[in-house]
Amino acid sequence: MNNNKLKITFLGGVGEIGKNMTALEYNDEIIIIDAGLTFPDDDLPGVDIVIPDMTYLVENKSKIKALLLTHGHEDHIGAVPFLLQQVNVPIYGSRLTLALVENKMKEYPKVKYKAISVKPKNVLKLGSFSIEFIKVSHSIAGSLAIAVTTPAGTVVHTGDFKIDYEPIDGVMTDLPRLGEIGRKGVNLLLCESTNVCRKGYSMSEKSVGRALDEIIKNHADNRIIVATFASNIHRMQQIMDIAEKYKRKIAFTGRSMINVSEVAMKIGELSFNRENIVDIEKVDKLDDKEVLIMTTGSQGEPMSALTRMAAGEFKSVKIRPNDLVILSASPIPGNEKNVYNVINALYKLGADVIYDELADVHTSGHACQEELKLMHSLVKPKFFMPVHGEYRHLKTHKELAMTLGMDARNIILPSIGMQVEMGPNSIKEVGFVTAGQRLVDGMGIGDMDSNVLRERKQLAEDGICVVCVNINNVAGEVTSEPFIITRGVVYADEQESFVQDAKACIIASLKETDLRGVEPSVIRASLRRNISNFIFRRTKRRPMILTIVTLD
Amino acid sequence: MNNNKLKITFLGGVGEIGKNMTALEYNDEIIIIDAGLTFPDDDLPGVDIVIPDMTYLVENKSKIKALLLTHGHEDHIGAVPFLLQQVNVPIYGSRLTLALVENKMKEYPKVKYKAISVKPKNVLKLGSFSIEFIKVSHSIAGSLAIAVTTPAGTVVHTGDFKIDYEPIDGVMTDLPRLGEIGRKGVNLLLCESTNVCRKGYSMSEKSVGRALDEIIKNHADNRIIVATFASNIHRMQQIMDIAEKYKRKIAFTGRSMINVSEVAMKIGELSFNRENIVDIEKVDKLDDKEVLIMTTGSQGEPMSALTRMAAGEFKSVKIRPNDLVILSASPIPGNEKNVYNVINALYKLGADVIYDELADVHTSGHACQEELKLMHSLVKPKFFMPVHGEYRHLKTHKELAMTLGMDARNIILPSIGMQVEMGPNSIKEVGFVTAGQRLVDGMGIGDMDSNVLRERKQLAEDGICVVCVNINNVAGEVTSEPFIITRGVVYADEQESFVQDAKACIIASLKETDLRGVEPSVIRASLRRNISNFIFRRTKRRPMILTIVTLD
Repeated sequence: MNNNKLKITFLGGVGEIGKNMTALEYNDEIIIIDAGLTFPDDDLPGVDIVIPDMTYLVENKSKIKALLLTHGHEDHIGAVPFLLQQVNVPIYGSRLTLALVENKMKEYPKVKYKAISVKPKNVLKLGSFSIEFIKVSHSIAGSLAIAVTTPAGTVVHTGDFKIDYEPIDGVMTDLPRLGEIGRKGVNLLLCESTNVCRKGYSMSEKSVGRALDEIIKNHADNRIIVATFASNIHRMQQIMDIAEKYKRKIAFTGRSMINVSEVAMKIGELSFNRENIVDIEKVDKLDDKEVLIMTTGSQGEPMSALTRMAAGEFKSVKIRPNDLVILSASPIPGNEKNVYNVINALYKLGADVIYDELADVHTSGHACQEELKLMHSLVKPKFFMPVHGEYRHLKTHKELAMTLGMDARNIILPSIGMQVEMGPNSIKEVGFVTAGQRLVDGMGIGDMDSNVLRERKQLAEDGICVVCVNINNVAGEVTSEPFIITRGVVYADEQESFVQDAKACIIASLKETDLRGVEPSVIRASLRRNISNFIFRRTKRRPMILTIVTLD
Repeated sequence: MNNNKLKITFLGGVGEIGKNMTALEYNDEIIIIDAGLTFPDDDLPGVDIVIPDMTYLVENKSKIKALLLTHGHEDHIGAVPFLLQQVNVPIYGSRLTLALVENKMKEYPKVKYKAISVKPKNVLKLGSFSIEFIKVSHSIAGSLAIAVTTPAGTVVHTGDFKIDYEPIDGVMTDLPRLGEIGRKGVNLLLCESTNVCRKGYSMSEKSVGRALDEIIKNHADNRIIVATFASNIHRMQQIMDIAEKYKRKIAFTGRSMINVSEVAMKIGELSFNRENIVDIEKVDKLDDKEVLIMTTGSQGEPMSALTRMAAGEFKSVKIRPNDLVILSASPIPGNEKNVYNVINALYKLGADVIYDELADVHTSGHACQEELKLMHSLVKPKFFMPVHGEYRHLKTHKELAMTLGMDARNIILPSIGMQVEMGPNSIKEVGFVTAGQRLVDGMGIGDMDSNVLRERKQLAEDGICVVCVNINNVAGEVTSEPFIITRGVVYADEQESFVQDAKACIIASLKETDLRGVEPSVIRASLRRNISNFIFRRTKRRPMILTIVTLD
């Protein structure tokens, strides 16, 4: 079918941040790299999560041999349950990645699946694919790049990565192996683009540790509360080492912090003396200077432990003037307002707060320009497709590759649903498959342009007005008083006079029509028009109007 | 009444960004500094603008002598029409500030007011107040700090400012005069805090000009489109000078760009050769290399000219691959997503795009840490209150003042509604007045915690379900088929079976009760409970439920 070409299908993560998913297809075999989700922003009221449209995979179910996971962040593993519900496929990933998947799958006890843990340098033969996993540094432990060799050539997918010369686990991004693979010949590089607009190098994880050490040393008498990403095991490890150094006991709080620290301890990714852990309920029995609380909520998430502390609603930890709160994170775009609200609230309770604007208490897990250049220079691909970024990132990454001498004709900017075919000496776009976003909302799954969202947005902007009239269309009479109710339209002071005038408007509207033998739809249409105009004159708004006409 | 003390009341701009408003009161005289608005974020669906609650001023109407405006940004002048509608007060400000107010007041032709233009170094005597205006640099021309001397002492209000050693209009922030006033003795400094978390100095406006010049020189064959803030006259002046240098004609587009450039030309704040201006409708007749289009939309505002160009919906300017679009602005927090969507769309149309992440095409108009230190060191106040910032900014500004040797006891952090009393050697908080936010929404003005907003938010999250039944409570019968309609709840595929099952649920619910002699409220309550539970089981959502029971 595909003439010994490798077909690559982009189902997510290109032209957007989040829900990464790519399929590689050779003859009758498909492997998938990552299955992530996106958290919706305010454009999608009431939506819980967004996942890739997997129609293409479901249609080609029988070909799928494996799901390979680069690392355990939600934008790479969050859609795994939704894939597994439709396609039974074995999953490959590092121990930590699989442990996080396992945790997630507890909510889907009926779904059975096979998980095979892999290590850097492992090579996996799957039909025509030879798959090698390569160690990379990132803001979660157990991150891997993937090199896939097929008869059509070799593809390197970087996953998310940075180059950290002082890695916490002592093992660097495997630059020598990447160079070796590059020297053997790489047809196509799929390289992440998140930080391609940032000049220079990302700060090392250890330099964050040094900043935290300095701050904690200088606040010897304070109780210390550190908020960070639960998945950033290396950050957690550094904080726990610092706590131990300054003889503080550690208490975890926040569901994901407790879960992930348990998982990471169990598989040995997090190592420390269990005697130094204290239950969050018992921290009040210790001196302030003996305590370090590690919490979730670094993004100001509404229900997180830190947000509740800041609101004075967290039972076990009441914020006091002797507290130093460190947000060891930076706000993910879109979360700024929530994060700053939490910081403001903590300050108002008298705590001292240190966050990324004030000190180097966070570093990104993504490669900046100089690190990307290094990746390109080691892998030296014939063809290049930037992935993992908005369109502006992909575009800027293309320009960066061109400054390194790459020919524009050898670069393709992918978009969602795009399929390209790669041979030993060629690459070209061959078309688009069904792809896009699916919205997971309570128990339903819907489309981006669904009625539900359009309706919710209109309701949010302008509110709703329900008009209900009862008529007898034989006698041609209105048989009960018209009923009108609004939500999100009229401010309390104006409610009474509004309802009175609206009822007069309804009655006048009904008088326009001879009600004998009339169809409800006719009355509904004229009522809707008259009430809509009445409300617009009154409020300059056009709420949603529902008219209910019942016949006696 | 106030024992020869100066009373200062904070009606906005403290503990928040936006809607700045402060009242100074000595015996029976009040002067107001600024009357600004805030643009609402997604927390306030359907709200147009937010203004300060002015109850205190309305109650003390007869005492008010003047409204002093520091500069013409919306967060300092946007609430002027709402103040003038309630209090007839003369307005003082620079020519540009007053021209912008005049522009705004065109929408309120019935409101008469008196406007008196002032210049730096002008001194105004108003009852017990002696008011001096002091030149400062900011991202709008005609910006002033204000020194107010009363028998209780002198207050310096910085307005918004930065220290720019290369000002475009050749006149710097008047450091010598600030020093002189400081040497004579200042009781209280009210200093803005926007950039207090940023180390060092802000970049000069001229350095932005140099960056733009370089970029435009290097794109000699491209058509150039520059988006910037319409109010940043000095930025506009620089861009127009560069256009002239490279022999490009200038076309303005976007309503506020056209308005403000007209206003600024008329009063001489913007100077250039009228022959270099070309109508936007005629740019297509010129070569690309002869054109520079200056447009609004640098914040990705949905209806702005640039956003419409990016969407391909702007008639006079169709984006083409030979276009270079420069966003000479940085996204105001909260606008990031809109701005990046516009950039992505421009790239997709083939244009090249340069924005603040990629080059130094913008600088802030607010003082960074070293500039704030200079202000403190010149004014040398006895007492200090940081203003114009979220609580975290005010807090950090307090710490900055303390590093300069100020005693914590001489610093008060203001919050909205707070009143302080200042004497020659004392300052103290004396209480709170009615204050807060008022939401302007279409024709209505409401409160922050109003029913309307709560309802809109619930509607946005979970949608609405309306249930309508008709009963005869004499016969104890349901007299027509129950009617159910939802909005924002059920995805299209599921609609039909949902309505069917919901009707069954309603009928079952009605059977629970003996309908003879029953009150509609009793039926409504049980219907609401049963339908809410039905929907929750089905969708895991709790939409707003409206039940309408009519009696035959």
